[in-house]
Amino acid sequence: MLKVGIVGVGTVGASVVKILKNSCDIIEARAGKKIIPICGVVRDAKKDRGVDIPLSENIDDVLENDEIDIVVELMGGVDDAYEVVKKALLNKKAVVTANKALLAYHRYKLQDIAGDLPIGFEASVAGGIPIIKALREGLSANHIDSIKGIMNGTCNYILTKMMNQNVEFSEVLQEAQNLGYAEADPTFDVGGFDAAHKLLILASIAYGVHADPEDILIEGIENINSDDIFFAKEFGYSIKHLTIAKKVSNDRVELRAHAALLKESAMLSKVDGVMNGISVIGDCVGETMYYGPGAGGDATASAVIADLIDIARVKQGSPMLGFKRILEKRGFSLLDPEQIKTKYYMRLKVEDKIGVLSDITSILGKHSISIDSLLQKQDKSDSSCATLLLSTHKAIERNIKNAIEEIGKLPISKATPVMLRIED
Amino acid sequence: MLKVGIVGVGTVGASVVKILKNSCDIIEARAGKKIIPICGVVRDAKKDRGVDIPLSENIDDVLENDEIDIVVELMGGVDDAYEVVKKALLNKKAVVTANKALLAYHRYKLQDIAGDLPIGFEASVAGGIPIIKALREGLSANHIDSIKGIMNGTCNYILTKMMNQNVEFSEVLQEAQNLGYAEADPTFDVGGFDAAHKLLILASIAYGVHADPEDILIEGIENINSDDIFFAKEFGYSIKHLTIAKKVSNDRVELRAHAALLKESAMLSKVDGVMNGISVIGDCVGETMYYGPGAGGDATASAVIADLIDIARVKQGSPMLGFKRILEKRGFSLLDPEQIKTKYYMRLKVEDKIGVLSDITSILGKHSISIDSLLQKQDKSDSSCATLLLSTHKAIERNIKNAIEEIGKLPISKATPVMLRIED
Repeated sequence: MLKVGIVGVGTVGASVVKILKNSCDIIEARAGKKIIPICGVVRDAKKDRGVDIPLSENIDDVLENDEIDIVVELMGGVDDAYEVVKKALLNKKAVVTANKALLAYHRYKLQDIAGDLPIGFEASVAGGIPIIKALREGLSANHIDSIKGIMNGTCNYILTKMMNQNVEFSEVLQEAQNLGYAEADPTFDVGGFDAAHKLLILASIAYGVHADPEDILIEGIENINSDDIFFAKEFGYSIKHLTIAKKVSNDRVELRAHAALLKESAMLSKVDGVMNGISVIGDCVGETMYYGPGAGGDATASAVIADLIDIARVKQGSPMLGFKRILEKRGFSLLDPEQIKTKYYMRLKVEDKIGVLSDITSILGKHSISIDSLLQKQDKSDSSCATLLLSTHKAIERNIKNAIEEIGKLPISKATPVMLRIED
Repeated sequence: MLKVGIVGVGTVGASVVKILKNSCDIIEARAGKKIIPICGVVRDAKKDRGVDIPLSENIDDVLENDEIDIVVELMGGVDDAYEVVKKALLNKKAVVTANKALLAYHRYKLQDIAGDLPIGFEASVAGGIPIIKALREGLSANHIDSIKGIMNGTCNYILTKMMNQNVEFSEVLQEAQNLGYAEADPTFDVGGFDAAHKLLILASIAYGVHADPEDILIEGIENINSDDIFFAKEFGYSIKHLTIAKKVSNDRVELRAHAALLKESAMLSKVDGVMNGISVIGDCVGETMYYGPGAGGDATASAVIADLIDIARVKQGSPMLGFKRILEKRGFSLLDPEQIKTKYYMRLKVEDKIGVLSDITSILGKHSISIDSLLQKQDKSDSSCATLLLSTHKAIERNIKNAIEEIGKLPISKATPVMLRIED
């Protein structure tokens, strides 16, 4: 069993506690042990946070608590958080943090203090996307040529809106603030600083680069207006706030966070709204890209808990097929393919004469299949025939197969019907 | 030091040997030890494979070689490969394999035989994309709702061509064969079997499901024709060969591999050509997607070597910032931001009078900046002014800044020029 203390129980902290409880079955099966949150530290212990663990205002209830194996740092900030994490490590506790600002400044110092103690920080970059793991482990055979990321959801939401709806920055910012996608003081996000912090973390893993935020080029999106959007569209670009790490020689890397015009055809251009995406080019693998939610309580908690499970697995490695126990015994069983329920598309070649459509629709109806769209075309090779292309609402695979078999046997049917499934 | 024997030295095996030699600097820095290929087993040792390790036709030169720590199985096939991997494990060697067919049938048996010995198989699914790691470790806090993947490059190449160029299946297949994207006997790929094998591996990690390829729904893309493409385009779909694992209840999962119509707006729809993409929906994280090359010698070797590095890191866990030694001492240094070289976009507000454009172009020319595209617009708020929007060919940041400063000081300049970088 691993016992966890959480410093800072806001949105992410509450999600961590909730998921550790609600998903304890799968977490234990994957980790090989129970992971239990036993204490949270907050500024005001009287405020209800909807979590059922004891809350304290005294940080030493976590840091000096011999029962606690892992400290989850979710308090934010730089120097105070550094002192907390440092003390946790000196007290021989593993640490998991979602704090990008802390790591943007103190990552190497913390690595030195930690020694063999694990520090997990998957949640610090791109929320629920396991990009730290991909870069540190999945792509470890590669010299990294470049990393380009859309790593700030607020910027991406605003720019996507500006692109799609031709509204000006200030107007979308206001809307984003109303929706909770932007802070009351949005500088940290729209000024590019949040993204730059994340870039520094990724750049350390890729390049071992020692740099602080002050050392690198950081610009925001405040100056972009509808003329820029107009130009971008005219020449086939999107506008994104990008973080870029690029190897320029064997010992030199450029790091920058700024808005940029990006070819619309690039995969990164397709990352819209509050989503994050990171494209990594390695010398062996070529380009890989990672996409997902970069923020939000549950998505960030997903990364925090993945780190906790990794810590539980330390010394044994991950189990080959993901489960340490329980689930590999009972596992999931297979659904009978005939019971699949989805939408369907059919191509039918039929005689082009009166009553055909009615024959077919009555067969479909008999099998509880209702048509969504229908197209009738002259058959290319035989003018006495028509091609019927249709899609259905959700139906059961067995019914579809039976209907198709029945339609195929009609005298007016001139070829074996073809069926494809539709995945919405 | 870890010594590696390779069984099967084809395209992937040769890439593994090459990268282990050429990238030994970064591999040692990340693994914390040297990883050395010392022997390969092939059918015909006289054939030149362009690798500088000893080749043998006797498999026991690897399996019974006490020097060898890790066996890399790249021979393909099912039952013979099973015997090889089994013997390697019984001889206490760790195993790395890229063999999806082997795992589609024997993954649970191999897990039992392995016990605490690591078996790496990142390369068996989606080549260079670290999807095994993402699913097994990155998303370990999640109950997986669904996995949808484009996991066969041959199918995706053919379908992309059919969508974009309105050509029929047989014609594109022929072309794909000529280009080496499809085998002489393409059944394994275009029939959906290859993708189904990969699906079974992912489904085991997500759901602990015990099933063989024969148990699940497998269809190919052979029946798709231009009518289907026509319908798909008409209603805003792409056609992709998808592998789908979907939880239908708390202990039942549906698994299927088949062509499907997919909304064009879905991220997976944007995975074109020979590329692979996998979308995973988890109950905490929501949707994450992984994109990259699903085949190719170097891309697959990237995953094989990542597994080797993971094995070197077993018992210690991954180093926090990715490097065990060396590189974190010397690391990369930062490029001076003024030396950045990229393309640029500028927005200038100027008086709308004769000679203005010539003033500006001469300043740009003086700073070695050449114009790529130029748009002139009437200014929205002031009809005596024009907005100039322009993009440049590659230039040096310092020159751009100097030019902008100079332009901003011109009497005809009516607002501070705005600059964005262009990332192609």
